Amino acid sequence: MKVLEERIRRDGIVEDTDVLKVDSFLNHQMDVELFAEMGREWARLYAGEGVNKILTIEASGIGVACVAAQAFHVPVVFAKKSRSKNIAGEVYTAPVESFTHGGVYDIMVSRRFLLPSDRVLIVDDFLANGAALQGLISLVRQAGATLIGAGIAVEKAFQPGGARIRAMGIRVESLARIKCMSPEKGVEFC
Amino acid sequence: MKVLEERIRRDGIVEDTDVLKVDSFLNHQMDVELFAEMGREWARLYAGEGVNKILTIEASGIGVACVAAQAFHVPVVFAKKSRSKNIAGEVYTAPVESFTHGGVYDIMVSRRFLLPSDRVLIVDDFLANGAALQGLISLVRQAGATLIGAGIAVEKAFQPGGARIRAMGIRVESLARIKCMSPEKGVEFC
Repeated sequence: MKVLEERIRRDGIVEDTDVLKVDSFLNHQMDVELFAEMGREWARLYAGEGVNKILTIEASGIGVACVAAQAFHVPVVFAKKSRSKNIAGEVYTAPVESFTHGGVYDIMVSRRFLLPSDRVLIVDDFLANGAALQGLISLVRQAGATLIGAGIAVEKAFQPGGARIRAMGIRVESLARIKCMSPEKGVEFC
Repeated sequence: MKVLEERIRRDGIVEDTDVLKVDSFLNHQMDVELFAEMGREWARLYAGEGVNKILTIEASGIGVACVAAQAFHVPVVFAKKSRSKNIAGEVYTAPVESFTHGGVYDIMVSRRFLLPSDRVLIVDDFLANGAALQGLISLVRQAGATLIGAGIAVEKAFQPGGARIRAMGIRVESLARIKCMSPEKGVEFC
């Protein structure tokens, strides 16, 4: 998606060959008009798939998921990163490995909001190792819902997450796919 | 706001005289079309105030803030709940007392995204004791930005937060103000 690629080139900060800061428009300060364009693009890509729910994960996925959901006219459910023990039976949970902070945390979603009749699109801001996305996929599977695919804003295509998820037969639509990057040369897209 | 009050009456679950669950449409599953109506209402209430930025706090404030921001055509910045030590000088921080989980946590926002020239509207899903809102107000003050007011979805008017913040001379527009509630009698609005 040209407009997102151009925005990354203009306002993204490449701190390292694998660290891209997009906090001025994507995941700290958020450009909601850009999010609306991204939502319309996912709606075009997933037209006719009968998506009736968008699933995302706190915190930085929530903004883009909520704005995008308006293009689908569907509700959003966000998975919570749990710090406390959960009440057995009320939630679906999945472990997620954190590459940023180290260790493993659990994500959870209430069973009341993921149903076997749901046709779910997962939306998130970043795809790198795919750990969070795999956790979200697990929640959809546990609920017996239909997974339509994933809508990702920025995919680091040089990391293994995207290839791994697609190899599972899951459709992934990333609006900007980064082939490689460096502080000297900037970002190169696929 | 009638539509929000009716939704709370219909889908809110009063678990106790001070616990209201609205997780089916406000803070776990999220009705983005309701959020858009709420955004238009805040835009009407704060028309002519020159709001150029919306500030909220992770996680459940982000969805309503992002959808509402579309009615203002402004970006959103969300304060993060920090678990780690922050790099001195790069962020504004404020302590927030947690009544739900106990203890005190820090919230933080990058100095790059709150400027003295900003005219800030704070948006959040709930106002009860006002601890999170006071933390957000502190961030705005530290930045030297102008605080226009707060847009709150649900205010528990029987708890002291709203009165305390208004006594500071800050405008607070809550779209549903709960006077009292109980599992037997349901919710009564102000």
